[in-house]
Formats: sequence, C-alpha cells, structure tokens
Amino acid sequence: MARSSCNLRINSKRLRADFDALADIGATMGGGVSRLALSNEDMAARAWFADRVEEAGLQIKDDEVGNLSGWLPAADPDAKTLMIGSHLDTVPNGGRFDGAIGVLAALECLRRIKEAGLKPSCHLEAINFTDEEGTWKSLFGSNGLIGKISANDISDTLHDNMAFRAALHRAGILLDELHHAQRDPESILGFLELHIEQGKRLHEQGLDIGIVDRIVGRTTYNVVFYGEAAHAGTTTADERRDALQGAAAYIIAAHNLVTEGYPEGVVNCGHVAVEPDSFNVVPAEASLRIEFRHPDTATLKEIEAQLIQLAQDCARQYRLTVATERVLHRAAERMSGYLFRQIESACQAEGARCTAIASYSGHNAQIMNQMVPAGMIFLPSVDGISHNPKEHTEWRHVEIGANILLRAILQLTV
Amino acid sequence: MARSSCNLRINSKRLRADFDALADIGATMGGGVSRLALSNEDMAARAWFADRVEEAGLQIKDDEVGNLSGWLPAADPDAKTLMIGSHLDTVPNGGRFDGAIGVLAALECLRRIKEAGLKPSCHLEAINFTDEEGTWKSLFGSNGLIGKISANDISDTLHDNMAFRAALHRAGILLDELHHAQRDPESILGFLELHIEQGKRLHEQGLDIGIVDRIVGRTTYNVVFYGEAAHAGTTTADERRDALQGAAAYIIAAHNLVTEGYPEGVVNCGHVAVEPDSFNVVPAEASLRIEFRHPDTATLKEIEAQLIQLAQDCARQYRLTVATERVLHRAAERMSGYLFRQIESACQAEGARCTAIASYSGHNAQIMNQMVPAGMIFLPSVDGISHNPKEHTEWRHVEIGANILLRAILQLTV
Repeated sequence: MARSSCNLRINSKRLRADFDALADIGATMGGGVSRLALSNEDMAARAWFADRVEEAGLQIKDDEVGNLSGWLPAADPDAKTLMIGSHLDTVPNGGRFDGAIGVLAALECLRRIKEAGLKPSCHLEAINFTDEEGTWKSLFGSNGLIGKISANDISDTLHDNMAFRAALHRAGILLDELHHAQRDPESILGFLELHIEQGKRLHEQGLDIGIVDRIVGRTTYNVVFYGEAAHAGTTTADERRDALQGAAAYIIAAHNLVTEGYPEGVVNCGHVAVEPDSFNVVPAEASLRIEFRHPDTATLKEIEAQLIQLAQDCARQYRLTVATERVLHRAAERMSGYLFRQIESACQAEGARCTAIASYSGHNAQIMNQMVPAGMIFLPSVDGISHNPKEHTEWRHVEIGANILLRAILQLTV
Repeated sequence: MARSSCNLRINSKRLRADFDALADIGATMGGGVSRLALSNEDMAARAWFADRVEEAGLQIKDDEVGNLSGWLPAADPDAKTLMIGSHLDTVPNGGRFDGAIGVLAALECLRRIKEAGLKPSCHLEAINFTDEEGTWKSLFGSNGLIGKISANDISDTLHDNMAFRAALHRAGILLDELHHAQRDPESILGFLELHIEQGKRLHEQGLDIGIVDRIVGRTTYNVVFYGEAAHAGTTTADERRDALQGAAAYIIAAHNLVTEGYPEGVVNCGHVAVEPDSFNVVPAEASLRIEFRHPDTATLKEIEAQLIQLAQDCARQYRLTVATERVLHRAAERMSGYLFRQIESACQAEGARCTAIASYSGHNAQIMNQMVPAGMIFLPSVDGISHNPKEHTEWRHVEIGANILLRAILQLTV
C-alpha cells in the first residue's frame, strides 16, 4: 500500500445517508425492511443503487443472473478484479443492516478510492448478488457467478417454479442465458464481504470486528417416521405404533446428541407434521425437517451419520419404520488464510479489537470461496438479533468495519 | 319372560341379507363403507331402513334431530318404551359393522317379536341415531333426544357451521325445531345397544360377548408452548427457547405418565404444528392437541390436573411459557347395573362366554345413560381393527349377540 493512501477514510456521513435512503425502500412498520428478491422493492433498491454508481462516476455492470455492480477499472484492462459486496435483498420484515451494509460499504470504498485519485492495480467491483436470502433460491446470484446455476435448476419437473420463472422474466433474467453469468476464476483476485454477525458473540465479548475463518457447512434432512393409524381410545398403549412418539423422542435425542457431543455444532427441527392429524387417531406418520451445521466438513459428516443412526434407534424403540432423505447440503468452507491475514493487519492498523470467528449462517462469500479466495468481516449485532426489524449494529462499528474493508482493498491493490 | 318366548331366535339369514344390502349403500373399494352423516349415502341408507320397517309391518317414527325408528306398540298406549339401536352413519371409508349391526339387530328383534305374536308390555323402538361418528357433531342424535342440542349449538358465531346447517336443512331438520326432539325420561324404560368392540380384548381372550359396565370419559386439550423464533444457525443451544423441544418432551412425558401411572387410562397426541414452520428458524410456537380417556371420572380429573402440571414443568425446563385450553369433555359413564345383569343372564341362557368390559370409545348408550338406564353388548372385533375397511366381526358372534339382545328384550318386556 502506498504511503499516500494510508490515511484514506470512508465518508461516514455519506455512507450513513445512503444507509438511511436505502432503508426507506421497502420500509416496514417498526423499523424493518421487506425487500424480497426480485420484488418491486428489490427492483427499486437496484435502481437506486445504479443511480449511486452512476453518480459516483463508476461504471455499471450486470450479468445474466441479475447481479448488479459498480465498477472502477484499473489502468491495465487485463488486470484481475477484486470483488467486494453482499446483497440488497432481505427476508420478509427483516432488518436494515443484513446485506445492505456490505453493498453500501463496498460502493463507498470505490468512491473514496476514485475521489482520492488512486490507481489500483486491479479492477474493483462493488457487487450486489441476486437473492441471497432465498426468496426463490438461496444464494442464487453467487452460485450463478461461479457457474452452479443452469436453466435446469429452475425448469425441473419436480418443483413448481412458475412464480420464480415469472419473477426472473420480469427482471429481464433469461433462463437460457443464466450459464453465461459464470466468471473465469483466473480473472478474479478475490472476494471480500462485510456483513453483520447475526449472532451475539462479538457483542457479548465487546469486540469491534470478527474475521471469519470458517463458514459452517449445513445439511438438511426430511425424516419421516411411519407407524400405524389406530383408534385413540380402544388401542392400548403396548399395541400402538405411534409415529409421533418416535418423532418426539428423536427431536429430544437429536438435540442432546449435538449439544453434548459437538459444542461447535447446532441442530434445529423447524418443521413437524403428522398424518392423519386428527386428535382421536394415533398418528400413522410424523414428518420432521431437521437441519444441522458444523464448521468442519468431516465432523458434519459424522453428525449426519449419527443422526441417521439415531432416527433408526428411535424408530426401533417405538416399533416404527423411518425414512431419511437428504434435501440440502452445503459444505463447510475454510476461508482464504491470505485474505484473513490481510483483514487482520487492517484491523491492527485501525486499532480495532478483533477475533477469528466462525459464521453459522450462509453467505455469498461461502459460495465465492469455492472458486476464488474469499474473506469476510463481521460487525457486532446488538444482542444477536437477526432477520428482525430490531436487528441493530452500532454505527461506530459500521464505520470501523468499512474503514477496515477500505484498508484491506488498498493493501491488496494499491 | 313367558315360557313360550324362551326359544325365540333371530332369523340369521334375513339379518345377514339385510347386512349385505346395507353394506352396498356407500360401499367403497376394498370392502369398506362411506356413509357420512346426512350425505346422499346416509340418506339412501335411511330410506332403505324405512322400507324395511314398513315391510315388517312396524310403524315409522322420526324426530326433530333426524333420528329414525321402527316402532312396535304395546297394547297400552301409556306404556313406557324400551329403545334399542345404534347408528347407520360411518366414518369415511369405515367398516360395515360399526353402528350398522346394532340398528339391524334391533330391527330383527322387533320383527321376530311381532312375527311370534308376542305382546310386549312396553313399546319397542328400533332407533337409528343421527351422526354418531361426528361428521358434523359427534353423537348429535342421542344428545338431541336427551335435550342437549339447541339451535345455538349450530348457529354460534365462533364456528362456521354453514355446511352443517345446509346439510340439516337438506335432510329436513329445522334448527328452530331441534329442541322438540327431547323425550320425557319417564316415558322410556331403558336403552340397549349392540355394537362391535373396536378393540381386541374380546378377540384375544376368545370370548363371545362383552357386557359394557363403564364407558370411558374423555377430555381433550389444546396445549400451546411459546418460545422465541431465532436463527437456526447463529443462535447457540443455551440461548434458544425452542417451543418444539418443550412440546416433544411433553409428548413423551405425557405418554409415560398415563402408561405407568394409570393402566386403565389412554392418552393420544394426534395433532402437532409449529410456527413459523421453517426449517432454518427455531420454532417460536408448538401446538398440540392431546386427548386422554379413563373409565373413572375422578381419576380422569386427576390425570387432567397432572397433565396440566406436566405441561408447565416441560415449559419451565425449556424456558417457555405454555397455554392449556380444555376443548372437549365427556364424563365417564357407569352403565345401568340392572341392565348389565339382564344381559348377563341372557348370555348365560345362550351359553355365551362373556365378560364385563369398559368401552374406550364413545357411544349413543353413553349419552342415553345420562337420562335413562342404558346397557351395551359388545361383539369381538377381529384383531381390534376399527374405522377401517378391514374391520370384521365373525358372523357367529353377530348371531350370538343378536340372540342375546332379543332375549334381554324379552326378559324386560314380555
């Protein structure tokens, strides 16, 4: 990094004005935001972002999966690109910081570098990825960029994606063109993402910054216990093959297994349903959706094997059968050590109290990391509240984080 | 009983022909029957029954809640009435025996008594009660007869009973007239019901007949556990207030409580749902519907108190709150000792192997017992299968049961 750029700082007031203006797009009662991917609000946010990019004298760039970027070219057209960004979409009635702060900070960094007349050795790209939150398909934009989205994913015959296809069409995203969004890994230097933690570890420890070293892998299963429907009055306890009793025992045992055996792991059962779902019939079928996460891929596999075994044990105990079906898997990611150290030295230079941290939620950086080195900077979430209008990050932490992001960019490219 | 009537027997062949003809009305694939109360099939079954009543030279009688009877008058118009019957309606795709056999046997008894020229001291009434199974309102006909149904029950503003009202209207049952169905208890000698057991106790013990001494009481609760929705990845186990974990612990504990502490009791949780019902959100709410039965009213109340306490304990264990709401209660009934002994002596005279038995399902006899002495004769259900096309009772048991019913009627009235 050239000495002249050492003291470059983001314009906090301008970043704050952008933040407030963006939070108005899709604002909900109680201070939240609804900007579901490809909704009118999301499209309005994209148009607003494009205006800011033009206003800053940056180039606008978009791709075939709807990712939208501001672009600051290097002098050498053959230079690699350093990508920086996150997402403008939100969950229904989510918070104002999640995703938005990463896109706005990236834009602010490019603006400052351009204003300062610096000549980065790489192209700089501030990117907004399409549908991070999964209104339609979680991490759609980043998966598209690394070549993992094809028309088949949306036109498959097993799922009714009609509304998704209509939303894509309306946004000018063409199924037949999706695969063109794939970038050449050789053209990209790396990816940096600033994001709120969405947990309370940084907040509770009074830290300013988390440097993400790992993003948890995640596996989701449908687990269906099968017993026998029976009259709830005339069938004695020892005659019953009650699917719900097996499922209830499994829910408790699965939580105990992970909590006691895998302190870095988490498990959740967020869905349950029984058939025939009548109060006076012993349940013949109980379906669960169970999800577990761990920052280490091998351990995640171990948990998976144990949870399948546990389902079989619970089924046997209640004289049931059980079917387990893996419905989603995302591998754990170990983030780039080089970018980790760059961020760490930027934290030191900025005097920020930081720690290495594992991310327990999925991020675009996790997808990008499959193709190019990626690094993530976490900001403290007050009380860990996430996907909620009450989600909050102190502005001084936003400022610190954005300055660290700027410093890391300069270290890498100037 | 006069000596001349000692050897009167039902006409098994005729009863069997009736049984087969009735099973054709609403017959389903696989040998089952769908005659939902007030459906076209139920109306056709009633018309068929009325034809059989007329054919036998009995009088037809109906009332303001749609109960339909064959009537054999005594010489003295001021005599009391001995009522005998059950129901022609079924659950969806139910069996051919449940309810039907009790109505047909009652009709056959009246036919035989009339054919034999006997002069019973009481009016005899073979009755089909409306909607025993609860397509609209469980035990509607018998509750109407004892004066426990009023227009308010159907026109209340809390429930949308529009389809029920339309079904009643179509069957010629008028809301404003419902209360006229109430009978004078002084006019009724008692009520006898022949029914299949719907459990496997008689079948497993190789017995011919069960004489019902008690019908279980039944209490149903909605139990809702309240926790806090949270991100399934970023929220650590000890931070969670997972409503489903509390509910799962409750399901297991409630079954253990009843199974271990109350051998005569049964409990079922047939419905469960969570909010927000998303696989990556920790459940904020888990709703159960739990039902428990016991043949003794005081014990049923004790179980109720313990299950409420248990819900609170489970809530505390998982840092939840819980709401419990009683949604249905039917008191346990101790059947008439006098009628029990009459049936018992009829069993002895017929050489049937019989036992006293508690009924774990609800019956019209349970409702009638609130107003007049009532007795019930149970037939063995093969393997206890009930509410299922595979429901079966051996014909020899039907024959034995119908002859015991006939003998009991004769003992009481001739």
